[in-house]
Amino acid sequence: MQTDRMKALTDGVLAIVLTILVLGFEVPEHDFSQAGLLAFLAQLAEPFIAYVVTFGIVSAYWIQHAAIFHYVTAGDRWFFWINLLFLLPVTMLPFLTNLRATYHDEHLVTVLYAATNVLCGLLLLALWRHGSRRQLARRVSAEVDRSMRGRILFGVALNIVGAGAAWIDTHLSSAVFIALPLLYLSHRVVDSQWRDGGSELAE
Amino acid sequence: MQTDRMKALTDGVLAIVLTILVLGFEVPEHDFSQAGLLAFLAQLAEPFIAYVVTFGIVSAYWIQHAAIFHYVTAGDRWFFWINLLFLLPVTMLPFLTNLRATYHDEHLVTVLYAATNVLCGLLLLALWRHGSRRQLARRVSAEVDRSMRGRILFGVALNIVGAGAAWIDTHLSSAVFIALPLLYLSHRVVDSQWRDGGSELAE
Amino acid sequence: MQTDRMKALTDGVLAIVLTILVLGFEVPEHDFSQAGLLAFLAQLAEPFIAYVVTFGIVSAYWIQHAAIFHYVTAGDRWFFWINLLFLLPVTMLPFLTNLRATYHDEHLVTVLYAATNVLCGLLLLALWRHGSRRQLARRVSAEVDRSMRGRILFGVALNIVGAGAAWIDTHLSSAVFIALPLLYLSHRVVDSQWRDGGSELAE
Amino acid sequence: MQTDRMKALTDGVLAIVLTILVLGFEVPEHDFSQAGLLAFLAQLAEPFIAYVVTFGIVSAYWIQHAAIFHYVTAGDRWFFWINLLFLLPVTMLPFLTNLRATYHDEHLVTVLYAATNVLCGLLLLALWRHGSRRQLARRVSAEVDRSMRGRILFGVALNIVGAGAAWIDTHLSSAVFIALPLLYLSHRVVDSQWRDGGSELAE
Repeated sequence: MQTDRMKALTDGVLAIVLTILVLGFEVPEHDFSQAGLLAFLAQLAEPFIAYVVTFGIVSAYWIQHAAIFHYVTAGDRWFFWINLLFLLPVTMLPFLTNLRATYHDEHLVTVLYAATNVLCGLLLLALWRHGSRRQLARRVSAEVDRSMRGRILFGVALNIVGAGAAWIDTHLSSAVFIALPLLYLSHRVVDSQWRDGGSELAE
Repeated sequence: MQTDRMKALTDGVLAIVLTILVLGFEVPEHDFSQAGLLAFLAQLAEPFIAYVVTFGIVSAYWIQHAAIFHYVTAGDRWFFWINLLFLLPVTMLPFLTNLRATYHDEHLVTVLYAATNVLCGLLLLALWRHGSRRQLARRVSAEVDRSMRGRILFGVALNIVGAGAAWIDTHLSSAVFIALPLLYLSHRVVDSQWRDGGSELAE
Repeated sequence: MQTDRMKALTDGVLAIVLTILVLGFEVPEHDFSQAGLLAFLAQLAEPFIAYVVTFGIVSAYWIQHAAIFHYVTAGDRWFFWINLLFLLPVTMLPFLTNLRATYHDEHLVTVLYAATNVLCGLLLLALWRHGSRRQLARRVSAEVDRSMRGRILFGVALNIVGAGAAWIDTHLSSAVFIALPLLYLSHRVVDSQWRDGGSELAE
Repeated sequence: MQTDRMKALTDGVLAIVLTILVLGFEVPEHDFSQAGLLAFLAQLAEPFIAYVVTFGIVSAYWIQHAAIFHYVTAGDRWFFWINLLFLLPVTMLPFLTNLRATYHDEHLVTVLYAATNVLCGLLLLALWRHGSRRQLARRVSAEVDRSMRGRILFGVALNIVGAGAAWIDTHLSSAVFIALPLLYLSHRVVDSQWRDGGSELAE
């Protein structure tokens, strides 16, 4: 089965997740004074941190998903269902982000958040392993396979570290979580899909 | 008329339905204690069950829709309108899921939910029958037709059973409903579209 | 400029509009009795009518938009901006639908709703006139042009009649509005795009 | 890497932003009188202005984004991440629009709004500079490059002027902001992508 619709559904879900994160920012009552506005904006610091962290993590998932589907151009029934299962914890993230914003001191909430992201990572890994094993369209080199798995497992490990950091300070957890997209952004090794893309530039 | 836009609209609607299910999870007041947080998380059990059930069912619809449009590559005016009619009860599901989460003891709510899903199933069946009869692009074998219809009608039957189970226990209904995606996932017979897809792997 | 992205943006906006209509259905408090549930469901009649009417009208806009873009395969800057302008009143419809559901007795609300739909119709007409005049890809026959304009203007006229009917009874207005998608569904004349599509079936 | 999915994600995010702007319009209590309805509609003036301004600005971003991706048909890792970074302030706009609607007298809110738009503009500029420098598919003429940069920087300048105007009157700011889409609409110079598109009309 062609992967076009799976890509379209996933892009849709991730686009909505990225955009509704902000629905957790509630505009306060109309009769606030200017002092009230400043107090309100100061209170937004915690929701804003929680929102930027999730925005970064979901962006990294999207990049990872695009990289997987760059190599895997068709899938069987299991591949489609693993993708749908991956979307399940992803759709939990806007709620968990709001919960983190409100309960920014509770490490339990941060652990729940990290556990959900560990699940996302493991399902992405399953998607890659199942998809790359079966796919026939392009040979996946051992190097690509190793770097793809390493990158996903790195994200999983980072979430476990972030969950542990919550016992010290939940803001430290946020700092660990945000490292995920930053490292994705700077990571050199897994660039083969971009290079492949480069050779297709002339379409 | 080409089916591209119908696929895009349906992917969009289903992606939004999957993602806004979680908007029913409301974050409680800020001044909660840790004990209050634990109580709140315990209360989330019912919304969580309702959300997972609907996520599974809508995922199954999406798989089914993708399978139908795998065979039906063009449609007339009726085909487009049947698709739009199918989306109408689908967009009711987030509201009905919230209602189930809140009124998890009321079998009336479960019956409403099941009835909406029966309607979704019957409209999917109409979509397949109308689309496959007219479609010229690929011959649909009798085997494909039988298994496609069987799979859709099986979902309809399961929803009727689930509605009946509500008189015993509404959680039993949830167990019956969730069987739909699980059986889709494991079902062997209707795999022809994946095999067809397999032959197109090299694009 | 290629119209792919304009189609994607429009499909996205219309998919969201169709899906968030239901966000106006609020689940009542948890401590309701069964009698309270029945009363609540009875109260949903007005929101449900308002929702079905808008779902039908937006579906008709989508069909119309797909028909226009079937003929118009590229556009200039004005074409793109007319499309964006068309989306402006369309995004007002979920709010106006909620307003209609709440103020189902006030003809002023129905007039606002109809006026917004008249604007949508006139902008669709401008889109067609501007797009079909300039488009070079396919000749648009006088017959197609006449039936396309007739169908759009018919929707505009129906909205004006529906607004007038609000002085008699706002439910009569709903009945007039819902005639729009029903007539689109049954309308014979404007079928050329389906026939054109038919000849492309073998892709 | 192919840009298809980046276009799909961006179209999705912008479509949602355009559509959820209206969620800030809250339908008042049911037991309002007709006088109350009129008062409510009069109060909608400020939210409506804020909504139209943001709708116009986001539309201009979409047109600009489509123009950039008309020339840039493939991108490296940085290009993808710059695009994701661009989406971050864009998803803030619905919240900031609601804030402007509620605090229409506070110039601080208008400054925040303008600053977010300046960020959007600078990230669009980075996207263009990074994408056009590397892209190999089509030569970008110096004229196209100059007009593209000019147009983006013009929007940035307009936002700075609009922020300054808030000290005089926040409605003047709105008037300045709305000039952005109006000038995009009427701007002659940067039409090369439409002309390029024109030559592709016959597909």
